[in-house]
Amino acid sequence: MTYQEVLQAARGNMGTLCKVCDVCNGLACGNHIPGPGAKGIGDGAARNYKKWQDYRVNMDTLTDVKTVCTRTTLFGREFELPVFAGPVGSVNMHYGDKYDDNQYNDILVSGCKKAGIAAFTGDGPNEQVFKATTVAIKNADGLGVPTVKPWNIEMVKEKMKLVKESDAFAVAMDIDAAGLPFLRRMVPPAGGKSVEELKEIVSMTDRPFIVKGIMTAAGAKKAVEAGAAGIVVSNHGGRVQDQCPATVEVLEEIVAAVKGKTTILIDGGIRSGVDVFKALALGADGVIIARPFVTAVYGGEDEGILAYVNKIKGELEDTMTMCGAASLKDITREMVTKY
Amino acid sequence: MTYQEVLQAARGNMGTLCKVCDVCNGLACGNHIPGPGAKGIGDGAARNYKKWQDYRVNMDTLTDVKTVCTRTTLFGREFELPVFAGPVGSVNMHYGDKYDDNQYNDILVSGCKKAGIAAFTGDGPNEQVFKATTVAIKNADGLGVPTVKPWNIEMVKEKMKLVKESDAFAVAMDIDAAGLPFLRRMVPPAGGKSVEELKEIVSMTDRPFIVKGIMTAAGAKKAVEAGAAGIVVSNHGGRVQDQCPATVEVLEEIVAAVKGKTTILIDGGIRSGVDVFKALALGADGVIIARPFVTAVYGGEDEGILAYVNKIKGELEDTMTMCGAASLKDITREMVTKY
Amino acid sequence: MTYQEVLQAARGNMGTLCKVCDVCNGLACGNHIPGPGAKGIGDGAARNYKKWQDYRVNMDTLTDVKTVCTRTTLFGREFELPVFAGPVGSVNMHYGDKYDDNQYNDILVSGCKKAGIAAFTGDGPNEQVFKATTVAIKNADGLGVPTVKPWNIEMVKEKMKLVKESDAFAVAMDIDAAGLPFLRRMVPPAGGKSVEELKEIVSMTDRPFIVKGIMTAAGAKKAVEAGAAGIVVSNHGGRVQDQCPATVEVLEEIVAAVKGKTTILIDGGIRSGVDVFKALALGADGVIIARPFVTAVYGGEDEGILAYVNKIKGELEDTMTMCGAASLKDITREMVTKY
Amino acid sequence: MTYQEVLQAARGNMGTLCKVCDVCNGLACGNHIPGPGAKGIGDGAARNYKKWQDYRVNMDTLTDVKTVCTRTTLFGREFELPVFAGPVGSVNMHYGDKYDDNQYNDILVSGCKKAGIAAFTGDGPNEQVFKATTVAIKNADGLGVPTVKPWNIEMVKEKMKLVKESDAFAVAMDIDAAGLPFLRRMVPPAGGKSVEELKEIVSMTDRPFIVKGIMTAAGAKKAVEAGAAGIVVSNHGGRVQDQCPATVEVLEEIVAAVKGKTTILIDGGIRSGVDVFKALALGADGVIIARPFVTAVYGGEDEGILAYVNKIKGELEDTMTMCGAASLKDITREMVTKY
Repeated sequence: MTYQEVLQAARGNMGTLCKVCDVCNGLACGNHIPGPGAKGIGDGAARNYKKWQDYRVNMDTLTDVKTVCTRTTLFGREFELPVFAGPVGSVNMHYGDKYDDNQYNDILVSGCKKAGIAAFTGDGPNEQVFKATTVAIKNADGLGVPTVKPWNIEMVKEKMKLVKESDAFAVAMDIDAAGLPFLRRMVPPAGGKSVEELKEIVSMTDRPFIVKGIMTAAGAKKAVEAGAAGIVVSNHGGRVQDQCPATVEVLEEIVAAVKGKTTILIDGGIRSGVDVFKALALGADGVIIARPFVTAVYGGEDEGILAYVNKIKGELEDTMTMCGAASLKDITREMVTKY
Repeated sequence: MTYQEVLQAARGNMGTLCKVCDVCNGLACGNHIPGPGAKGIGDGAARNYKKWQDYRVNMDTLTDVKTVCTRTTLFGREFELPVFAGPVGSVNMHYGDKYDDNQYNDILVSGCKKAGIAAFTGDGPNEQVFKATTVAIKNADGLGVPTVKPWNIEMVKEKMKLVKESDAFAVAMDIDAAGLPFLRRMVPPAGGKSVEELKEIVSMTDRPFIVKGIMTAAGAKKAVEAGAAGIVVSNHGGRVQDQCPATVEVLEEIVAAVKGKTTILIDGGIRSGVDVFKALALGADGVIIARPFVTAVYGGEDEGILAYVNKIKGELEDTMTMCGAASLKDITREMVTKY
Repeated sequence: MTYQEVLQAARGNMGTLCKVCDVCNGLACGNHIPGPGAKGIGDGAARNYKKWQDYRVNMDTLTDVKTVCTRTTLFGREFELPVFAGPVGSVNMHYGDKYDDNQYNDILVSGCKKAGIAAFTGDGPNEQVFKATTVAIKNADGLGVPTVKPWNIEMVKEKMKLVKESDAFAVAMDIDAAGLPFLRRMVPPAGGKSVEELKEIVSMTDRPFIVKGIMTAAGAKKAVEAGAAGIVVSNHGGRVQDQCPATVEVLEEIVAAVKGKTTILIDGGIRSGVDVFKALALGADGVIIARPFVTAVYGGEDEGILAYVNKIKGELEDTMTMCGAASLKDITREMVTKY
Repeated sequence: MTYQEVLQAARGNMGTLCKVCDVCNGLACGNHIPGPGAKGIGDGAARNYKKWQDYRVNMDTLTDVKTVCTRTTLFGREFELPVFAGPVGSVNMHYGDKYDDNQYNDILVSGCKKAGIAAFTGDGPNEQVFKATTVAIKNADGLGVPTVKPWNIEMVKEKMKLVKESDAFAVAMDIDAAGLPFLRRMVPPAGGKSVEELKEIVSMTDRPFIVKGIMTAAGAKKAVEAGAAGIVVSNHGGRVQDQCPATVEVLEEIVAAVKGKTTILIDGGIRSGVDVFKALALGADGVIIARPFVTAVYGGEDEGILAYVNKIKGELEDTMTMCGAASLKDITREMVTKY
């Protein structure tokens, strides 16, 4: 199954809001929410995608690189490539009736494991969903990252117990979910965390803790201070705050601030292995891709996931070969130029 | 009533010149005048709107901000948020028969008061209009800002008497109205004012005097020298001079010149609470929004105004929450980046 | 007759190549030649027009300017405004049968005089045309500038005799015409001139000599060295060389090189009085506008020319008023900003 | 036969993938491969073309240049102009049935010789093709450059014997072909070369050796170190790696690194003599143009090639005349400005 066939198979099975575009670039959905669209004027997702194109790769084949290896480790686990599937919630609302959240997460977690990577899974107003994801991760030998919403401390504590049972190799919190309406309306309200609050949360778990939703150097430093083993440079695909910068636009200043002190992941508009290469060249340790994995699941379940992962991996290998990087650590800043 | 419902209700009731666009961005009207369009090549209103998008907000939810407050004071009065409705004149010519200027201003002034903000009202060739606005403001306990055209000194003196009777909490003069045809044709001609002339005008009133239509640091300094309690960075929505910069393009140099010496307001293409946030981050003390309040009045009178104010307020609150500003004074320059 | 009525009247009377656009901006004609289009990829005329829009005017009405005056002098003659009509040749080829070159030039020269300005007239392969323009200029009391092609020295000498008889107040040579095919094919070939050759040509006449077609600071200095009383920053509307810069893009470096040593005119995409204001603010002493005068002649002859001149003059007056310049010499560099 | 007639004749004879556009600019083909389109997101060919337009030529006709000469030498041979036809392979797959690779190369090599230039010829999976090109070059008195794929050393040795028999005046290797699928799949794999490997290859031949596919200063220096007599700044028209810079974007830094140490050619989106002029002004010694020669062959064989060469030559002569360069060595960096 090729990725084009996956897309073709997905069309007609994903409801009416997602247009299953050849490239998921935020243009067709714009600011239509529910749907994968962005908040406010709705240029957030599109900007995430478009700004990667301002970075170009510097080809140099006068090297002794004959074969390349995309393998990496994250918190002690080995992966085929530094790409992880992103958490997606409320799939019924966004993508129609084919799967519910539990079915979707089951397929995603196990499919990613089979493809040699791991999935982040979501959280939401229905607490059964989070619970089910932790079971799915347990079934996949802990190869998944449950992503807890920034609830109040008591509820986070409950969630962390489930995380422990899941044996997940890491746990994340998408602190930018503070901008989602259903969290705003909660009593007591959920949302942003002070460094002290985050420290307390980090101390609740014995897993590596990843803070997702960092868009400033100051925020990255605070995550490190609170004990984050990793951060995700992310604006939640443009869905939590209108008119943020693209994630790649802030990546380098965040790298300058915390590189070496925490693991740096990035998401937002990454769609090909060339984009993955660029992210690594700019200092990221890995990337998260979200929406294309939805299409992969709807278009081919395990096979769809494998097809997409292989596409990305092939592109990453090609670019490494053409730029002279035999392994991920050989990818340097000079291999990419911003125009 | 949501803002989308207000827009829907306004369609069909606003004449043929305004297209009641989802976002009032100056593109559909272009240089068609009469109508809300801009002068000359007609890119003035559109540029005002578009340039705000070059400024992006820096999300950081690792803070202890749990609730935010948008309240502010202007010249001793308290308001729900730092947003004011702009003066609009000749509504029959621009928006058809539904309201005349007197009816429009009555609704605008009282509706803004009910929504917790205040309106600026206009002036024009028919002197009954200005007189009526001062009555409307008196009926609203002085919660309105009559905006006097830059007439010759004698006529300004007459207007100032009416202002005094209105008990308005402040008074403004849109000095850039010097570019409007009906003022050019007056005998003696109305128009620009020297610092000496402006000093004399300022001395005619015991209210805070606001100079509207400042587009340069030099102009701002002259307004301060003449005793202006406030200025409005404004190019009159592109309707008085072809090919000005956008207002946000000149805001920072004006802030650098007069911040702390006068109150700085800005108008031009501000359409959401995110834009309001940006204006404050760049140094403004508040903003004026004009055209969307016309739609609000035509689409729902008091309710329409409230719906629009609540939309703006909600967006401002969201952005403050996501950037870590509990109150307006916590909004700093670092929270916005120009790209 | 308004300028819009002139355009309307011109439509249907200008052949099939010119589209008589609302604004003559080089887009509809592109690289279609014959026709007013540009050479090569055909973006020359469009770039000339578009780049003016990057310069924005700085409105400031806090001044004591009550009335403005656009009058100027050029080589001892007084004009209503610093705008001159450009030379246009081969009107039959470009604009159909309504006028031949002689009729066109007669109308242009006398119409411009009546409107208070002066016209530059053209030259071409048919020597009767140039001869006729000198007669037209003589009939207009010398208020015209015959523009001689860069022929070889002998032919220039012949032309200069005709210039003398015309009593023209100045004479020009469009040295960039070296790029026009009919000049390339001549025997001996016409074209570029060395400083020595230009000196000889300048010495042939007792009138102020204007070198048209300067696009570099080095070229401007050479023109001054050769004795030019004036230069025209011009790329011949994009019709003599593919992919030049826009004229406004090189204006300031030329001003820096020769301001005060020669009179500086500029053409290329100037379409409104706001553009004229910008050119003067950047250091030009006056401007030439070509194509819109063709439309003016075809759409209304004397009345058409007057309508267009009045439109430009009104826009220039408005901009001077709004920026605080009472006379042309009060227009300063600070009144315009490049974005 | 004009170039427009060549294009017209080519239409209908070039299969269904190439649209035979008026200007071959990579837009209509995008990322459709097979076909002349680019890899990945497919903006590589289009960017190559478009970026040349950011460089504008500085016209100055105040010179004593009366006639210009475009003649040049490359490795001891004289050519009418510094333009070479690029290697194109698998014409059946891309352009339909009219010609096979052998026929195409025969026409290209002999036609280019007749037109006063030389062709680079291609290599591919079918080894008869390369063999035939060396025969074609021998028949053209060695006026052609066989371009060897970056095979493993043993196969390169075989190819070099054929090159020697061809009497070609130079030989090239497109080292960036490492990105083409059929080379990836070979056993042992073909692809990039270390400096040591390239030295060994260079030493296998007594002809000037040209390394094609350089996109960085570091790569250029390595080619020089390995003994390359020439390099071609090239990204293979965007077909071997997604999202490279345009070739003109990297030209100047490569010129700064190796000018004077090796001959510098460049390809990628060069479509007119104005582009050739720009390349020389930026420091290149000559250019390669590929796709337009395909159209020339299909539209008119020898005559088509001559028409295209004459078009380019005429444009180059015009630009040299208008900028004051009598010979190629008079073309200086100051004659072009980047905007």
